[in-house]
Amino acid sequence: MKVGILGGGQLGRMLLQAAANYPVETYLLENDPECPAAHLCHHFTQGDKTDFDTVYNFGKNLDAITIEIENVNIEALVALEEKGVKIFPKPVVLKTIKNKILQKQYYKENNIPTSDFVVTNNLEDIQKHSEFLPAVQKLAEGGYDGRGVEIIKTKEAIANGFDAPAVLEKLIPIEKEIAVMIAVNEKGETVLYPAVEMHFDEDLNLLDYQICPADLNQQTLYKIEAIALAVVRNFKSSGIFAVELFVDKNQNVFVNETAPRVHNSGHHTIEAHFSSQFDMLLRIILNYPLGNSTYIQPSIMVNIIGADSHFGSVNYEGLNEVLKMENCFVHLYGKKQTKPGRKMGHVTILSNEKQDLLHKANLIKRTLIAKT
Amino acid sequence: MKVGILGGGQLGRMLLQAAANYPVETYLLENDPECPAAHLCHHFTQGDKTDFDTVYNFGKNLDAITIEIENVNIEALVALEEKGVKIFPKPVVLKTIKNKILQKQYYKENNIPTSDFVVTNNLEDIQKHSEFLPAVQKLAEGGYDGRGVEIIKTKEAIANGFDAPAVLEKLIPIEKEIAVMIAVNEKGETVLYPAVEMHFDEDLNLLDYQICPADLNQQTLYKIEAIALAVVRNFKSSGIFAVELFVDKNQNVFVNETAPRVHNSGHHTIEAHFSSQFDMLLRIILNYPLGNSTYIQPSIMVNIIGADSHFGSVNYEGLNEVLKMENCFVHLYGKKQTKPGRKMGHVTILSNEKQDLLHKANLIKRTLIAKT
Repeated sequence: MKVGILGGGQLGRMLLQAAANYPVETYLLENDPECPAAHLCHHFTQGDKTDFDTVYNFGKNLDAITIEIENVNIEALVALEEKGVKIFPKPVVLKTIKNKILQKQYYKENNIPTSDFVVTNNLEDIQKHSEFLPAVQKLAEGGYDGRGVEIIKTKEAIANGFDAPAVLEKLIPIEKEIAVMIAVNEKGETVLYPAVEMHFDEDLNLLDYQICPADLNQQTLYKIEAIALAVVRNFKSSGIFAVELFVDKNQNVFVNETAPRVHNSGHHTIEAHFSSQFDMLLRIILNYPLGNSTYIQPSIMVNIIGADSHFGSVNYEGLNEVLKMENCFVHLYGKKQTKPGRKMGHVTILSNEKQDLLHKANLIKRTLIAKT
Repeated sequence: MKVGILGGGQLGRMLLQAAANYPVETYLLENDPECPAAHLCHHFTQGDKTDFDTVYNFGKNLDAITIEIENVNIEALVALEEKGVKIFPKPVVLKTIKNKILQKQYYKENNIPTSDFVVTNNLEDIQKHSEFLPAVQKLAEGGYDGRGVEIIKTKEAIANGFDAPAVLEKLIPIEKEIAVMIAVNEKGETVLYPAVEMHFDEDLNLLDYQICPADLNQQTLYKIEAIALAVVRNFKSSGIFAVELFVDKNQNVFVNETAPRVHNSGHHTIEAHFSSQFDMLLRIILNYPLGNSTYIQPSIMVNIIGADSHFGSVNYEGLNEVLKMENCFVHLYGKKQTKPGRKMGHVTILSNEKQDLLHKANLIKRTLIAKT
C-alpha cells in the first residue's frame, strides 16, 4: 500500500518511525529536504504542500494520504478524494478545522459546548464587541504552535489584536486543560485514549508538560469523553483526532479546539501505551484493527523548546544528565537550527509514582536546554 | 555525527527506527536497494559490504561505523579504524567471532566454559574424531540464521557433515538455552540486560520464541552473568553483544556463541525495556550515557518465519487477529518475498502474567503465518 504524508516535521518523523513496523510504502511531501522526516520515507518529494498542482501530482498515484499539519492545499485533496484516494481525515473536516471561524461555528451547530465567541474581521470589530473582554482572539487561518493567538484583557489592549478575520472568544476561568485523542476507523468504530492534563508555558503559549492520565473526577471525565466523542463523530471521518478542552471551577467543560491528526498531546503514547497515536493512525490507514489505547504506565511528556534569544545551530545542554535518568525516553527531532519557542524534541517519563513523574518533569525542564 | 551501518536487514531497520530519536546522520551500505532498512537512512549506498574498496569508500568520511551482520569486509574496517573512524565492535573482535574456529579458540584461551571441540577441515577429519559423536558441526565461515550447522549423531551421519573448515563440538544435554545482551561503552562501562530463555524450532534451527526474564535459580543466573561478562570484557571493545549460553541438567553453563551486534534475542527490548538494544547501541556510538536495561514488563518475543514450501510474494495470514490482541506489538520487516525459514517479522507480548505470555505466544505462532 502506498501512503503519502503532507508535511515533514516531527509528527511526520514519528509517524514514519512507526510505519516501519508494517509493510507500507511511504511518500512524503515537504519543501525542506532537510526536514525531520525527509530521510525516513521511501519516496521524498520536495514541494509546496499548499500548492494545488504539487499536492495533486504527489497524491494521484497513492492509495491514501494523511497530514501532519492543517496548512495544506485542501482543494487538491478534494480532487484526489474524488479520484478514489483515501484521505485521513476527509478534506471537508480539514476545511472546517483549518479555519478557526468555521471550527467555532461547527461546535455551535452541533451543540458542542464551547466558549462564547464573535467573528471579528478587523480591529474595529473588536471595539464593537468590547463586552467580550477579557477575551482571546484567534486568527482564522495560519496560526500554529502558539502563533496567531492574542489575549486581550482590556480596551487599551485591543490595538494588539489581529486586524484580520479572527474569532474573539470569551476568556474562560480555566481550572484544567485536557486533551483527548480519539481514533476512528473506516467502519466508524472509535477508540478513546485516556484523557491527559496539559500545563502550558504562558509566555510562549506552548505546551509545557502534560500528564497521563488526567486527575479528574469520574463525572467530569465522562462528560469530557462524551463531548470529545460528539466532536469527532459529527465529522463523519476516519482518522485520529486530538480534542482539547477546558474545565472550569464548576466542572463545566468547553471544547477549545480540535486537531484532525496526530498531535503533540499524544507523544507520550509512543512508550507509555500499547498502541501509540502513530501506530493507531497507521492501523486506520492500512485498514487494520484499531489498537489498544490503554497505558502501560502513567506518564508525563515534556516538550524541549528552543531557549529564549538563542538563534542558530542547536546544542543540547544537559542532554547527558537526562539520558541518565532511568525511566525517561528522549526524542530529539534532528532540527539543526534552534530559535526561541521552536519545538526541538520531547522527553517522556514513565512511572507508577506521580511524585516521581512531576519531580523528573521539573528536573528535565530545568536541565535540558536547546540553545546555540 | 555521521554514522554508517553495514547491512540493511531487519536489524538495520530497527536500528534506524531508534536512530530517529537522536540527532544523527545515518548512512547505509547494502546490495539490495529494496532491503528492509534502505529507506530509513539519510544516505543509502548500494554496494557489496564484503568488498574492500566498497566498504572503505563508504566509511572513509564517516565518524563511526557499526554492523548488523558479521559477513562484511573486515580488512576495510581495520583500515578505516587506523584512519580514525570508530568501529563498533572493533574489527579484531569481528575477525574472532566471524570464524567459528577462532571463536571457539577464543573461549578456550580465555578460560570461558564452552563445549569440547576439535577443528575439522573435511569429512575425513570428522571420521578421525568419531569419539566426539554425537556432535554438532558448525561451518567456520558463512553460516547464518540456521544455515551452516549440522547435528551428527552417528558415524553413518558423518556423510551429511561439511567437507570444509568447521568446528566439531560435543553435544551438550541442554536443559535451557539462554541469551544475555551486554552493552559496553568507550569507557569500558558495562550494562547487562536481563537473561532471556530461548526456545528453538528444531526443524529450522531458528529461534521460535523467547521469554524475558529467564526462569533460573539465582546461582545459575549469577554464573551466566559472570561468564557472559567475561566473554565480552576480554574482547576489549565497546559495542553491544549477545552471548548465547547452554545450561545443562547439573546447572553447568557453557557459552554457545556470541554475536557482536544487535541480535534477534534482543527484539523484545524495543517495547519491554526502558532502553532497547537499538537505543543502547546508539547511545554507545554517540558517546551518550548507557541506558537502563531494566524491563518495564516481562515479555515474550515470537519470530514470524516464512512458512514451509511457500516461495514468493508474502501474505500475512492471521495478521488482523494478532493486531487485535491487546498486549501485542507487531513488527513486519517489509520484505516483499517470503521463503521457508526467512525471518519476516516478530511479535512482542507484554504481560505480568507468565501464563498470558505463553498462551498468546502459542496462539500467535498458530495464527500469524507468512505465506504466499
